[in-house]
Amino acid sequence: MLYMLDLFGTGVFAITGALAAGRKNLDLFGVFVLATVTAIGGGTLRDMALGASPVFWITDSGYLLVAGGGAILTVLWARFTAWSPRALPVADAVGLATFTVIGAGKALELGAAPEIAVLMGVMTGVAGGMIRDVLCGEVPLVLRKEIYATASIFGGTVFVLAMRFLPYDALSTWLGVAAALALRLAAIHWNLSLPVFTHIDLRSGPDGGR
Amino acid sequence: MLYMLDLFGTGVFAITGALAAGRKNLDLFGVFVLATVTAIGGGTLRDMALGASPVFWITDSGYLLVAGGGAILTVLWARFTAWSPRALPVADAVGLATFTVIGAGKALELGAAPEIAVLMGVMTGVAGGMIRDVLCGEVPLVLRKEIYATASIFGGTVFVLAMRFLPYDALSTWLGVAAALALRLAAIHWNLSLPVFTHIDLRSGPDGGR
Amino acid sequence: MLYMLDLFGTGVFAITGALAAGRKNLDLFGVFVLATVTAIGGGTLRDMALGASPVFWITDSGYLLVAGGGAILTVLWARFTAWSPRALPVADAVGLATFTVIGAGKALELGAAPEIAVLMGVMTGVAGGMIRDVLCGEVPLVLRKEIYATASIFGGTVFVLAMRFLPYDALSTWLGVAAALALRLAAIHWNLSLPVFTHIDLRSGPDGGR
Repeated sequence: MLYMLDLFGTGVFAITGALAAGRKNLDLFGVFVLATVTAIGGGTLRDMALGASPVFWITDSGYLLVAGGGAILTVLWARFTAWSPRALPVADAVGLATFTVIGAGKALELGAAPEIAVLMGVMTGVAGGMIRDVLCGEVPLVLRKEIYATASIFGGTVFVLAMRFLPYDALSTWLGVAAALALRLAAIHWNLSLPVFTHIDLRSGPDGGR
Repeated sequence: MLYMLDLFGTGVFAITGALAAGRKNLDLFGVFVLATVTAIGGGTLRDMALGASPVFWITDSGYLLVAGGGAILTVLWARFTAWSPRALPVADAVGLATFTVIGAGKALELGAAPEIAVLMGVMTGVAGGMIRDVLCGEVPLVLRKEIYATASIFGGTVFVLAMRFLPYDALSTWLGVAAALALRLAAIHWNLSLPVFTHIDLRSGPDGGR
Repeated sequence: MLYMLDLFGTGVFAITGALAAGRKNLDLFGVFVLATVTAIGGGTLRDMALGASPVFWITDSGYLLVAGGGAILTVLWARFTAWSPRALPVADAVGLATFTVIGAGKALELGAAPEIAVLMGVMTGVAGGMIRDVLCGEVPLVLRKEIYATASIFGGTVFVLAMRFLPYDALSTWLGVAAALALRLAAIHWNLSLPVFTHIDLRSGPDGGR
């Protein structure tokens, strides 16, 4: 069940990557790269940091297949309509919640401390989208606004605490997914954002702020 | 012989990195970083993903020496002429073909599935140039146009299939190199490109296309 | 003592990351990401390249705590004044010198060749700031001007040579730190820069300079 959700999230993230490629007029190879990087980039960085080698999609080609399928589906869909599916943000929230808990769980399995596990959950959830935005020449959206990473941090924290204090791992997993999903859907519905930090450095000479 | 071609490709890729640094008015350290990153970036990512640690240039300093040599050569060359060598795209195609087959071969050796091996070949061939472009603040050229990555995919596929069905590894290697090289040279000669995917998302609100 | 300097450098680098986030109007999550990436990004890449897994901050949460502390401190400081601390470039130089020697030392310990150790020192010192700048959508400052990376290369070289020819490792460590620090402070004081490489490629067609 969690594996199915994982593949579902992979496909949804791939679609958002392919849509970003469409906005930037990339060619078909670019569509595949952005779809793939968005879908598996976060988990790849997580595995590299944890030293879990080889990274997860090397031994299970299913992830790449699903990501490629998402890219093809997006290009075909765009032939018929300029409207992205209305359910996309909701599907994306499901992917974010799933990736978070899977990432945090993998870190715990490998013996990481609880706070590191939460961090690995967030990295799994948001780093792929950050690489997508950097490849598009943009400052990553997740750094600028919205309760997106915050939902991931919240879900990861709930999951890690539950793993510590609850007797059933499956229950902890679903609690974590539910927590991240609930906060993200609330943020979409009420359009919630984090406060922005604006700072103009008056001493910004040649070395200022290095 | 393949090792010589590998070093040749490293030097050529370093030259394209140094030229990019010159277009962006970087300083000498910037020239070395862009040259090195372009030359060894793809293979580095490949080794990190495959869990082949340490990465290849740690144990064989020859790669870094050649990359540094390419950078110095470029700066000296640019003192005399504003024309980049006419043979550069052809030399670059040789580098691309070599890197592809070496990358795919390393993946096969480490037990990766055929489709992963093809992907690793492409990554070895194009990821260094992608990092170079990102460091220059540009959307990677390889995502936007031209038959470049496609030549790498083609050569890698020919190589992996040949490794499976032909009795001689050396033959498979040269078939793969020849296939990638032929397609890339044809693309240069006839100026071939992949179709572009343009998509304007009409539902691009705060969450649209995330 | 070196560990204390290491944490000090981590905090200072985190502050420069948080200030960059403020210039770009990122939200609080963005502040934390930029602070963390600047502080631990270079060492993370070094560990990934060397195959030292898991990376250093997985097993010692102190680094992340200090980086997070630096981010919070910066946001609080900015509530009271638009002036970044006058001592920041000097503190940053201390961080650069420390990171360099620690990075080079870790590479030597893992059996890397001297020239690779120098490279790993530079990577530890400057790669975090490069990732910070890329996430901000800018060409990394360190590639463009100033004696910054050069100070790191100088300190790393002094350290590696001293490790080879001097009997006391502690002496070599402090010689390396002092060398990098001295050159960097001199560069700040006299505003020294590396020469810039400008090259306009007259043959910049579709394949030019690839």
